[in-house]
Amino acid sequence: MDKYPLEARTVSESQSERSEIIFPADANALGNLFGGRLMQFIDLVGAMAAARHARTYVVTASMDHLDFIAPVHVSDLLVLKASVNRAFRTSMEIGVKALVEDIQSGQTRHVSSAYLTYVAVDAQGNPMEVPPLLPETPHQKRRYEDAGRRREHRAAESQHRKQRTEASEWKV
Amino acid sequence: MDKYPLEARTVSESQSERSEIIFPADANALGNLFGGRLMQFIDLVGAMAAARHARTYVVTASMDHLDFIAPVHVSDLLVLKASVNRAFRTSMEIGVKALVEDIQSGQTRHVSSAYLTYVAVDAQGNPMEVPPLLPETPHQKRRYEDAGRRREHRAAESQHRKQRTEASEWKV
Amino acid sequence: MDKYPLEARTVSESQSERSEIIFPADANALGNLFGGRLMQFIDLVGAMAAARHARTYVVTASMDHLDFIAPVHVSDLLVLKASVNRAFRTSMEIGVKALVEDIQSGQTRHVSSAYLTYVAVDAQGNPMEVPPLLPETPHQKRRYEDAGRRREHRAAESQHRKQRTEASEWKV
Amino acid sequence: MDKYPLEARTVSESQSERSEIIFPADANALGNLFGGRLMQFIDLVGAMAAARHARTYVVTASMDHLDFIAPVHVSDLLVLKASVNRAFRTSMEIGVKALVEDIQSGQTRHVSSAYLTYVAVDAQGNPMEVPPLLPETPHQKRRYEDAGRRREHRAAESQHRKQRTEASEWKV
Amino acid sequence: MDKYPLEARTVSESQSERSEIIFPADANALGNLFGGRLMQFIDLVGAMAAARHARTYVVTASMDHLDFIAPVHVSDLLVLKASVNRAFRTSMEIGVKALVEDIQSGQTRHVSSAYLTYVAVDAQGNPMEVPPLLPETPHQKRRYEDAGRRREHRAAESQHRKQRTEASEWKV
Amino acid sequence: MDKYPLEARTVSESQSERSEIIFPADANALGNLFGGRLMQFIDLVGAMAAARHARTYVVTASMDHLDFIAPVHVSDLLVLKASVNRAFRTSMEIGVKALVEDIQSGQTRHVSSAYLTYVAVDAQGNPMEVPPLLPETPHQKRRYEDAGRRREHRAAESQHRKQRTEASEWKV
Repeated sequence: MDKYPLEARTVSESQSERSEIIFPADANALGNLFGGRLMQFIDLVGAMAAARHARTYVVTASMDHLDFIAPVHVSDLLVLKASVNRAFRTSMEIGVKALVEDIQSGQTRHVSSAYLTYVAVDAQGNPMEVPPLLPETPHQKRRYEDAGRRREHRAAESQHRKQRTEASEWKV
Repeated sequence: MDKYPLEARTVSESQSERSEIIFPADANALGNLFGGRLMQFIDLVGAMAAARHARTYVVTASMDHLDFIAPVHVSDLLVLKASVNRAFRTSMEIGVKALVEDIQSGQTRHVSSAYLTYVAVDAQGNPMEVPPLLPETPHQKRRYEDAGRRREHRAAESQHRKQRTEASEWKV
Repeated sequence: MDKYPLEARTVSESQSERSEIIFPADANALGNLFGGRLMQFIDLVGAMAAARHARTYVVTASMDHLDFIAPVHVSDLLVLKASVNRAFRTSMEIGVKALVEDIQSGQTRHVSSAYLTYVAVDAQGNPMEVPPLLPETPHQKRRYEDAGRRREHRAAESQHRKQRTEASEWKV
Repeated sequence: MDKYPLEARTVSESQSERSEIIFPADANALGNLFGGRLMQFIDLVGAMAAARHARTYVVTASMDHLDFIAPVHVSDLLVLKASVNRAFRTSMEIGVKALVEDIQSGQTRHVSSAYLTYVAVDAQGNPMEVPPLLPETPHQKRRYEDAGRRREHRAAESQHRKQRTEASEWKV
Repeated sequence: MDKYPLEARTVSESQSERSEIIFPADANALGNLFGGRLMQFIDLVGAMAAARHARTYVVTASMDHLDFIAPVHVSDLLVLKASVNRAFRTSMEIGVKALVEDIQSGQTRHVSSAYLTYVAVDAQGNPMEVPPLLPETPHQKRRYEDAGRRREHRAAESQHRKQRTEASEWKV
Repeated sequence: MDKYPLEARTVSESQSERSEIIFPADANALGNLFGGRLMQFIDLVGAMAAARHARTYVVTASMDHLDFIAPVHVSDLLVLKASVNRAFRTSMEIGVKALVEDIQSGQTRHVSSAYLTYVAVDAQGNPMEVPPLLPETPHQKRRYEDAGRRREHRAAESQHRKQRTEASEWKV
């Protein structure tokens, strides 16, 4: 209570959706949506959910996992859905799922998933506390727990990279 | 030998670099390069290194980690460097590092790192075998080992998500 | 029945929503979203609703009314909603409403409304019949009627312009 | 005279023209210029004519009619012409006509027409009075009258929508 | 006559004009239109004049001179004018002049000039003969002569660079 | 010494490289990178080398020569290299070379060369002195001399154009 003076919010209060029709300008030479453009779409919808939960500006801090399960083609209708998995002190883990909706049949297929972390900031870019998340359904509770596990893995990996860097300057 | 009929290539043969001057059109309302645009830059330079190693088209399969360490501002000179960490049968893990170079002093600061996996494909989009990677320096050997460890973690996480999905339909 | 061999669909089956965070690249020198860019956003979400109703490609045929009620600023969250008002033989009238959602308060304000007509086409661009629309609620029924009234006005105006053109070549 | 302290200007003083070569990046999957992009081109040339007449910044207030008569293809030369039809106190109705010029034959065909209303504003976005328009030719005089008729229709429609909204909240 | 089986065309038949309102997205961190974007605008209007004279596709072969006389600012109205200076067998020299028109006063100032050479090609990219140019006014005749002088200088420079390259591989 | 209080810098200290994968969005209807887009890429990499030499902002002043030797196709890997040829008081001549690297073979072919002049400016846009250039290799010395020759030609041409303009207003 003391730690979180802000009132908790539910997952559904900030769930966000954004759709795109894929144009030739978004495609590579194979006629598929190129990876970096899909990442941009994922970051945008994730930022919407994070901003709605935090009710302030947000900046992307990390992407912890992103996979491309199936290609997306020109003129596909791409639907991106984002929801807050867990809120920490000034950051939030957001899960994003991308689906392609077949216009003829109305069927959807899952094309990509991602976990991103956003930090809430004020207009000067300083971190701000965010409201705690109140998971309600069994799914939301599982994702809440998974987000904690991923955060620990992230911290361990970060520690691992730091030691490498201290031992020897990291060079590409 | 049998498994890899293609001749091994060194890391330096495919190392890639790409630079950007950040324009107002790349920035958010805080005057910083927005996350999704940086992801697009990272994906592009990573694809260059992967294509140079595989000597064919490549498509992004996953991003396993990406962190934004420091903000990038309008008119910054952003330098992105990519190198192959490890080649698997038809895929490659690429490490990307982003630096900002201060024009006045010539000093650089590290702003972002990422690991991405690309799959080599032919003009019809079918996966193709890639040459094995020959790590030469101690750094390259460590990154080679780390890439193997990350691949195992990725497989375990993927298995974990699959079980979740079987137990209950994954919904955002 | 004879005229419409396709099964009728409800309004809710094709309702579409698309959101945008406004970036400096979308703004004019006054820091507001410029009109032509908002028109592009409106056309996109309208095309989504039309394609979902028709279950095929659609092309924009006309925009019958569009007003900008209030300016949209950089970093605003713009939410666009589209629904089919009425289906004719091969065309559909779509209503689009644009709202700005205040991130701090969660309040929305109405910024723009538009009526557009799309024609359903096959992959060669030939017009195709579309399913009839089944309005269910009183609101949907009113919009259905209004769409008919606008179509008549459109036909009258078109006739008016044609007579002008016949009388004297239309020159700008 | 009292009402319009600004000196009247002729139509030809602000007539504007803008041309585009259509690139693959402007096209949809059918290889045609997509509607929202053409609206953007129309808004731009209309804003030029309005700004030249008002001699200040202008913002788009409404689009009263827009029709797409024929598709525009990749590599077509699109010519857009705009002229002021009538000036009101702080607003102007602009007519825009879009033509495709065939490079081989030099022939043009009419592809789109639109009427837009722009409001003149100062650097803070406050409305400013605009000079009256002096129609000179019979064509200009007809368009002047038609613009008045459209303004009345616009006001009636606006009133109609307001009543609907009062009776019941407008929902998409 | 034998050499040019195509009928000569005048300068005015292909003169082209294109205007742009400068948006923040076109500007650098100093708020000025950046050089590369202006080059893109210059190339576009030059290609229009060349295509209209040749009545076929054209590709840019060289830019022989381009200077930026004064900066162009956000919200400036930029007017670009292009005309054919001289037609050779399959190529044309085009002169482009860029002006900024002050919206308040209607005054223009000259901001940039360029000379570009375009080659006429068919749909497979093979060079095609172009009609000869018929200069009519004293200005057009001077520009015709200047274009010949520049072509000779270009050939001499090209020869100079080729000798350098033969003597020693050209490296950056 | 008096004239150049800034310490001389070598060519290699500011050499810059930038790579692009060509996407359909960069291409014309023939599937080739269009001229204006390549000019934009050339201006960007040239500005990087100039900014690194001057250690301040730079603006493009002129392009003295640019030729397109061979077309660039969609999905080509374009590599652009820039180096300072000579520094004058507040300006620098930069040479840019563009190569296409064949992904399959690793072979490169030369597609374009250009000479550009940039002026060093402070944050208000006022010209600033730049460090002198220290050419070291025979190639660098030749390019240094050639840059002087081109500067003289540029001055002569500029004088020629000015006389034309005085004699009669320059019109397109």
